[in-house]
Amino acid sequence: MKVITLLTDFGLKDGYAGLLKGVIWSIAPDAQITDLSHSIPPQDVFSGALTLMRCVPYFPPGTVHIAVVDPGVGTLRRALAAQIGKHFFVGPDNGLFSRLIEPAKSAGEPIHFFSLDQPGFWLADVSPVFHGRDIFAPVGAHLANGVPLEQMGSRITDPATILFPEPARTEDGWVGEVIHVDHFGNLATNITVSHIAPLNQVEISINQIKIPGIVKAFGDRQPGERIALIDSAGWLSLAVVNGNAAEAWSAGMGSRVEVMKAS
Amino acid sequence: MKVITLLTDFGLKDGYAGLLKGVIWSIAPDAQITDLSHSIPPQDVFSGALTLMRCVPYFPPGTVHIAVVDPGVGTLRRALAAQIGKHFFVGPDNGLFSRLIEPAKSAGEPIHFFSLDQPGFWLADVSPVFHGRDIFAPVGAHLANGVPLEQMGSRITDPATILFPEPARTEDGWVGEVIHVDHFGNLATNITVSHIAPLNQVEISINQIKIPGIVKAFGDRQPGERIALIDSAGWLSLAVVNGNAAEAWSAGMGSRVEVMKAS
Amino acid sequence: MKVITLLTDFGLKDGYAGLLKGVIWSIAPDAQITDLSHSIPPQDVFSGALTLMRCVPYFPPGTVHIAVVDPGVGTLRRALAAQIGKHFFVGPDNGLFSRLIEPAKSAGEPIHFFSLDQPGFWLADVSPVFHGRDIFAPVGAHLANGVPLEQMGSRITDPATILFPEPARTEDGWVGEVIHVDHFGNLATNITVSHIAPLNQVEISINQIKIPGIVKAFGDRQPGERIALIDSAGWLSLAVVNGNAAEAWSAGMGSRVEVMKAS
Repeated sequence: MKVITLLTDFGLKDGYAGLLKGVIWSIAPDAQITDLSHSIPPQDVFSGALTLMRCVPYFPPGTVHIAVVDPGVGTLRRALAAQIGKHFFVGPDNGLFSRLIEPAKSAGEPIHFFSLDQPGFWLADVSPVFHGRDIFAPVGAHLANGVPLEQMGSRITDPATILFPEPARTEDGWVGEVIHVDHFGNLATNITVSHIAPLNQVEISINQIKIPGIVKAFGDRQPGERIALIDSAGWLSLAVVNGNAAEAWSAGMGSRVEVMKAS
Repeated sequence: MKVITLLTDFGLKDGYAGLLKGVIWSIAPDAQITDLSHSIPPQDVFSGALTLMRCVPYFPPGTVHIAVVDPGVGTLRRALAAQIGKHFFVGPDNGLFSRLIEPAKSAGEPIHFFSLDQPGFWLADVSPVFHGRDIFAPVGAHLANGVPLEQMGSRITDPATILFPEPARTEDGWVGEVIHVDHFGNLATNITVSHIAPLNQVEISINQIKIPGIVKAFGDRQPGERIALIDSAGWLSLAVVNGNAAEAWSAGMGSRVEVMKAS
Repeated sequence: MKVITLLTDFGLKDGYAGLLKGVIWSIAPDAQITDLSHSIPPQDVFSGALTLMRCVPYFPPGTVHIAVVDPGVGTLRRALAAQIGKHFFVGPDNGLFSRLIEPAKSAGEPIHFFSLDQPGFWLADVSPVFHGRDIFAPVGAHLANGVPLEQMGSRITDPATILFPEPARTEDGWVGEVIHVDHFGNLATNITVSHIAPLNQVEISINQIKIPGIVKAFGDRQPGERIALIDSAGWLSLAVVNGNAAEAWSAGMGSRVEVMKAS
């Protein structure tokens, strides 16, 4: 039995996300399908790439991840299928999968990209506005059925990548930015546990507000208190215990965050 | 293995949509169930019918579609199970399935409607406010198990239908209206590719704003530009590239749209 | 085949809810997983407990319910697995499962609670901010695989419970409060059909507005009318036909509701 995940910016109200499962089960009747998210902000490839980066490692080897955040649908942008490490991916060539390449490379795992060009594996009619339905879902289903990548496209070596902001070294720490605001309003930054570990004791500052040190868990402080912690992906995050940090700090995507060695 | 889809106006927060799966798996343990949408606007049978019309054709033959947008629950309105073409349907008799009849009829496919009257196929206790749980989900599960429609109800020939607005012919084109606003704010109209094709070159007007011609894909114009295109169901749609057309045009359900032969 | 349900306050946008399925399928590849809700209000254990109470009875015996509304994650609060009646439960020890104990006790069914302390059944790395991913999902998957509770933890007899407000007797009826506002804006109260039945004819009052009697179904009154009815869980509920009662009454969680014998 093969697992397939779906990540899109389609939202949940119109039935488009459910429809993809109809297409998949028409080709791969046994596929176990789960939604990762259909609430990626419209056309926000960066957010889709980050969500994949956080979630993919927790799926079984061989899982097929179909991702459709696709402002270029129907234009000349390529359609891709790929193997990156132990997982398979299908979607537009716009960088959605690019955050997964480095970890696979570091682990010495295989990385293969193919530009989809075999319409025999697509639905008979392809709408120029819905490749998720007409190309990506059927190709993902054929992959789950064991059709090799090589049969569905031509090998390429230059898949698109997204720009990912790296934190910058300062005299006594790092300056980075908020790269994700989650459902709770927690602010995840591009500063990771590996940046912070060597600094020993730190203080964190965002929008003129300083936080002394990093706590281990939300419950280590009282409800309403502002805290910094390492989130479940290893990223430095700012939070309000049982509250909403994005609102409390009036902060969001791109807000500047600084980490300094505590004096 | 049988596929079952769920379409309701229950929303996602209260657990009602998940609970339907418990009822189904208690009767049909192997059923593969997917949500189509639980975010149909409350009591909006028209929107439910359109969503079914767009999604159902992409599911495998034999799929059972359970749809519960049901303002008349607990009153004298009938409860239905039906075969329309290659698919099965369960839900209230209020027109939810009526947009699927015409295509099946045109294709010469079977159409059978039954009024559910065999409580042996329902849960033991039937609440007058939740037939989705107590009647429709169990009947859908028994259908997936292969129980014939005939055993669960009495044949009827007058299922309810919804009023669907047809576009009107004008001197040099068509006047129609917006019949769906999707998650992106795209405005789908009741004017289809078959109305427009004979006109050759067209211009489109909505709320005093004219759009010259129809583009093939979103990416054919710059972000922020207003465009008209044929959507993935073959309907004329108005959109803003990477934007929200409903907001940009202050338009919504019922807004008047005109298509004229370009001069 | 074993059924697993998921109930959390994670929301749907970040992929966390999907990720749990990856963890589960990595351990129990055949598990049939459904979401109950991921839209429990953040940290609202009471709302999670009520949703479980309403939904669990409709799932097949042996279902494993994983519930993660967990403000105390990473602190000294215990992690639990339990059998309550015919169902299994995994989650934090904060009362989430406590509304299911009384019905099981009344039915003479088994009730066993265990404090999870065998890391061999968890993911290798446990983040102090995401036990849902690292402890509860894997333990739930092992339970679905048939690993006995006894192997995964130590028996306890004092699981946490939530405070549940009971309605109070008045001279001629009951005074209670709103305990749930659903997606439609219907107001469910802690007054049940068993409180009301002996009163014969009643009138209901909330925020100075009186409603004469209880109707059976929404469609028994005209759109826009305010009604009282017994909801699908047997709770007295206030509603507006095809409307939103919470808005109409400016009422919500905790609003006082009174039921009096009709004069």
